[in-house]
Amino acid sequence: MTIDDCTVAVLGLGLVGGSIARDLAARGVRVAGFDADPATLDAACVAGVVQTRLDADLHDRGAGETDSRTIVIIAVPVSETRRVIQGLPKRLAQAALVMDVASTKRSVLTVAAAAGIAERFVGSHPMAGDHRTGWSASRRGLFSGATVYLCPTPRTHDDAIQIAREFWGALGGRTQLLDDRDHDERVAFTSHMPHVVSAALALAMAKAGIGHDELGPGGRDVLRLARSSPDMWSAVAADNSEAILKALAAIETELAAFRHTLTSGDERALHAMFSAARAWTDDGNTAVHR
Amino acid sequence: MTIDDCTVAVLGLGLVGGSIARDLAARGVRVAGFDADPATLDAACVAGVVQTRLDADLHDRGAGETDSRTIVIIAVPVSETRRVIQGLPKRLAQAALVMDVASTKRSVLTVAAAAGIAERFVGSHPMAGDHRTGWSASRRGLFSGATVYLCPTPRTHDDAIQIAREFWGALGGRTQLLDDRDHDERVAFTSHMPHVVSAALALAMAKAGIGHDELGPGGRDVLRLARSSPDMWSAVAADNSEAILKALAAIETELAAFRHTLTSGDERALHAMFSAARAWTDDGNTAVHR
Repeated sequence: MTIDDCTVAVLGLGLVGGSIARDLAARGVRVAGFDADPATLDAACVAGVVQTRLDADLHDRGAGETDSRTIVIIAVPVSETRRVIQGLPKRLAQAALVMDVASTKRSVLTVAAAAGIAERFVGSHPMAGDHRTGWSASRRGLFSGATVYLCPTPRTHDDAIQIAREFWGALGGRTQLLDDRDHDERVAFTSHMPHVVSAALALAMAKAGIGHDELGPGGRDVLRLARSSPDMWSAVAADNSEAILKALAAIETELAAFRHTLTSGDERALHAMFSAARAWTDDGNTAVHR
Repeated sequence: MTIDDCTVAVLGLGLVGGSIARDLAARGVRVAGFDADPATLDAACVAGVVQTRLDADLHDRGAGETDSRTIVIIAVPVSETRRVIQGLPKRLAQAALVMDVASTKRSVLTVAAAAGIAERFVGSHPMAGDHRTGWSASRRGLFSGATVYLCPTPRTHDDAIQIAREFWGALGGRTQLLDDRDHDERVAFTSHMPHVVSAALALAMAKAGIGHDELGPGGRDVLRLARSSPDMWSAVAADNSEAILKALAAIETELAAFRHTLTSGDERALHAMFSAARAWTDDGNTAVHR
């Protein structure tokens, strides 16, 4: 089975789900779609991206029997993801592969196992997107070159993992298998904690009476993440708080070190710190993946 | 007098100085140039951007008497800036206007006053550029739409300030007069402290064994400033350490608040914090300038 033989049901047509649907449709894959916002679903149908409109119970009124050549993509915020998995109708729960795209994986895999779909579930997390949200921000090629973490359950069948790899590969992603706990700890560092830092910077500037228009290009880069969806990020932060707290402790330690060095006025020590930071950003400095 | 009647001596042809020289040359203004790196000066001359090559003593061998229709731009790192001001040859020290472009202003204005050029000195700071450095990164239009802070000394003549406004306006900048102490405190928040935070994030990730290639687009935004020049930023940080320490205390306070809220697991409180951060980033949220 290849993804070109499948129908892909995309549940949630925001930035990530909408971009997945656009790439699939451009490839000629049949896309069934649902979004809680009827206007979004209308727009996706009118654009020719969604061929089959699912109703609020996620049923396809035109479809007959269960089709094992179905792939389900749940592309909603993490708290919603758990609810959607628990409420999947039988037809979709029996799909060859069910994936989500949320930013945390431990809690999602737990719910998938409890829902009895552990064998065909692969948690996925594409490291793509930006602070914009919704169908209007979705676009073709969003996942081109992006790392996509895949977190199977302990019981996921190999063929489901293989389809998941093929699926994201077709969208240009570079898949990487990762244990769900490792995933949550790593993205706490690479994504969740930087989001918290960006938000904290915005709050500090607001209290200091600084206007957003006073930022130079560098400041705007650092503050861009603070524009992200509070709905999405409060859910992520609450779901992965333990790992984020560890990552926060790490950045607080480094800030304290800068504070001490600034207080001492040791310019050579400051130079060494900025140099070490820059050395890490060199492209050659790649991760040691386990 | 307008800038089109002047010769502009650009001392330092890196990202900022090189971009100034390119914009001026494109406008037909005569540019005299110097750079400590002979290859950079050669490249700027070959490109037709610098018409008159200054020697290591900043003399123009072809020039006769002192020309009051000269503008001097010192575009080197802040520690060098002070040294260049102190060593300006008489011909340039008598220019109609002397400006620097460094990221801190108090120490520079102090040196300008001590050098006896307070009447014709305007400290300037264009909020433009990126982590790249050097002539090869310089380009036309770098200052288009950028805020340019102008910090005169208490004794700067009005006509020198007027030429400075016209100069940056011709390059597309939006000039804003600011007291040097206010300037240093504000940019500590909007630029210097975010640089330190970005570097601290890089150091935290390095110690956690995270690779730069693991960052998603948001993480890359926040970490971009960590790629900046350690030479430039250790000098800035040492020069403005007092104000940066205040700004660091502010971000540390906000991070502690996030830590407490994450520990409590209060998702609604997290939502309120992320919402307040996003509200600040709205473009309507402009500064109240004094």
